[in-house]
Amino acid sequence: MITSYNVFVPSIMGCGSSLRTGIKVRELGCKKVLVVYDKGLKAVGIADTIVENLHNSGIETVCFDGVLPDPPDTMVERAAEIARNEAIDGIVAIGGGSAIDTAKGINVLINNPPPIMKYFGMQKRLKLGVPMVFIPTTSGTGSEVTNMCVISCTSRGNKDSVVSPVCVATLAILDPELTLGLPPKMTAATGVDALSHAVESLTGNQSNPLSDALARDAIHTIAKWLPIAYRDGSNIEAREQMLLASMFAGMAFTNGLVHLGHSIGHTLGAHFHVPHGVACAVALPEVIEYASRTEYKKVRMICECLGVELPVNATPEEIGAAAKNALRTLIKSVDIPNMKELGIPLEAVKKVAPLVTADSGFALVPYRIPSSKVAEMLLSAYEA
Amino acid sequence: MITSYNVFVPSIMGCGSSLRTGIKVRELGCKKVLVVYDKGLKAVGIADTIVENLHNSGIETVCFDGVLPDPPDTMVERAAEIARNEAIDGIVAIGGGSAIDTAKGINVLINNPPPIMKYFGMQKRLKLGVPMVFIPTTSGTGSEVTNMCVISCTSRGNKDSVVSPVCVATLAILDPELTLGLPPKMTAATGVDALSHAVESLTGNQSNPLSDALARDAIHTIAKWLPIAYRDGSNIEAREQMLLASMFAGMAFTNGLVHLGHSIGHTLGAHFHVPHGVACAVALPEVIEYASRTEYKKVRMICECLGVELPVNATPEEIGAAAKNALRTLIKSVDIPNMKELGIPLEAVKKVAPLVTADSGFALVPYRIPSSKVAEMLLSAYEA
Repeated sequence: MITSYNVFVPSIMGCGSSLRTGIKVRELGCKKVLVVYDKGLKAVGIADTIVENLHNSGIETVCFDGVLPDPPDTMVERAAEIARNEAIDGIVAIGGGSAIDTAKGINVLINNPPPIMKYFGMQKRLKLGVPMVFIPTTSGTGSEVTNMCVISCTSRGNKDSVVSPVCVATLAILDPELTLGLPPKMTAATGVDALSHAVESLTGNQSNPLSDALARDAIHTIAKWLPIAYRDGSNIEAREQMLLASMFAGMAFTNGLVHLGHSIGHTLGAHFHVPHGVACAVALPEVIEYASRTEYKKVRMICECLGVELPVNATPEEIGAAAKNALRTLIKSVDIPNMKELGIPLEAVKKVAPLVTADSGFALVPYRIPSSKVAEMLLSAYEA
Repeated sequence: MITSYNVFVPSIMGCGSSLRTGIKVRELGCKKVLVVYDKGLKAVGIADTIVENLHNSGIETVCFDGVLPDPPDTMVERAAEIARNEAIDGIVAIGGGSAIDTAKGINVLINNPPPIMKYFGMQKRLKLGVPMVFIPTTSGTGSEVTNMCVISCTSRGNKDSVVSPVCVATLAILDPELTLGLPPKMTAATGVDALSHAVESLTGNQSNPLSDALARDAIHTIAKWLPIAYRDGSNIEAREQMLLASMFAGMAFTNGLVHLGHSIGHTLGAHFHVPHGVACAVALPEVIEYASRTEYKKVRMICECLGVELPVNATPEEIGAAAKNALRTLIKSVDIPNMKELGIPLEAVKKVAPLVTADSGFALVPYRIPSSKVAEMLLSAYEA
């Protein structure tokens, strides 16, 4: 089998590294950048500090503070129009996955005409945009190091993604101090998002030894540090480790890709407005248990990273059950609600189950699974 | 502390992947490439197969088959003149570190005037060259994924390196089938080179969590598969694992850098014409034992990757001694000769010891070490 290793984003990491944004953007040769963030980030002062830092390095800025969660195509197209009219020569995104995906969508449209939905899917021949610097303020998405942006298609009512070199950052700046203010609930939701990237890419059919090494490291780190970051958001070491794990998981799934957990997540997210990380996590233990039928060697690795010891001759079923329990324990330890606690009626869950197999990412599921089995998983996870 | 993660080369890997060279070079937009290799590779038919593969994809080729070990600056400059005169728009290097470093040196000189020694050291502002595709045929150098080329300076009689984005490959193609013919002695020598990259970068002062993850994976893989590849060169799984470990170690040391083992290796190599991997390995156990005085947490990781169990409260001295023994056992298991067996007189070793501290890489040693201590290490390793 021939495998490909792709997409690695140079990055700088450490407390205070976001204060090098101006210097780094100048080094890239940019003179006027679009700064992309949401109003919440403006309110806590993080956006202003970085904008000021850019000004101090002589960089002109145009601010787009209208980022919305699950970035709608219409919002991205409006922002891209501003970028083109202002003739910016660089983009700086500050925030979680929504801000970063918005920036990527804008970059797609800088030299390719809208609408963005024309470019959903793998795109090899898009015209390049401008240099992009991404500064994540959550530890989950990993979007700062991936080659894809997830956009909500308002006319179709679903999410889809552009996968292209145009979506790859020129530089990621990972400053754990920016994540200190993240409330426990969001720390947990974004943390389990990173966890789902790691365990799904490890068991995905595009996984390779490099993505495996990164995924294993990420799982190990998340198991150790997510509960600490959740209980004590001011623990800077926990914040740094989670930012790192999130980046590793992002690198891993850019290579190994994610699968069923994310198809479930996208479906629940679209129908019940559950935060992405939570939606991906609710049935993750069941997904990995099922994966163990064929991918038991990989699921065994997940157990090891989670500190679960297994007998040498454990069967795929035993490995799967152990992984399910360990993942559930970890997810519960940071109080991620199950579907019942989220207030989703059981009947509604039964109705959306068949839609999971229609998710655009379902093709990546590394094993055959009938729609009825997906429904069974969701019901088993409903109040687990 | 703010750390940087740099230089990742996209790669494809797998048996037969070298037969995609033509397709990949065409995708890069190249029409006429310089193919760089040595006469040995021509003799075994590997070079011709790849040249033919390029022709089949409509790529014109100019061959430079004059690669010499420890590439001399004069040879690199001659090859670069050919490249400029022939107006090539891409470079394909096939071989070990010498072929790949020659290709990098040529690329430096495509748009920057010779001599190459002008560019030794870290170079941020060199004019870019052409796309480069590297196809390693040994598992050791990792040069296919690094940003540096090591060149022998004929006028000064030493080795130095150019570190620059101009030295970074556009694509690495890792085909384990090309390493099947490597004789046991070279399998061992190149394998311990990869080992030294991994253990030195792990204990180096530029190490970061990403280089650590890659280095640990590489050490673990080398410990398991190098003895197998050495005993049975036809074991394709062992060849594949070693090629992978070598690449991981290359990525690790591009970030974490190497230190004292390589300064010793360069010095012994320059004075006694010992193959690079062997020269770096002869005192590696002593180097890591010494590193344990300050870097005992990292040396403990090395022990774990080598399968050595240590008590939780092991002292730095105990950790260092365990690492020394385990590394020596691994190195001996593939019959790497010690300095006595290499026929280097004890008196000569005493004489070169002070020169180790003059090596251009000595500045990277992460701890203070007097020249007398280096001499002591070399004497202790002399017939170990």
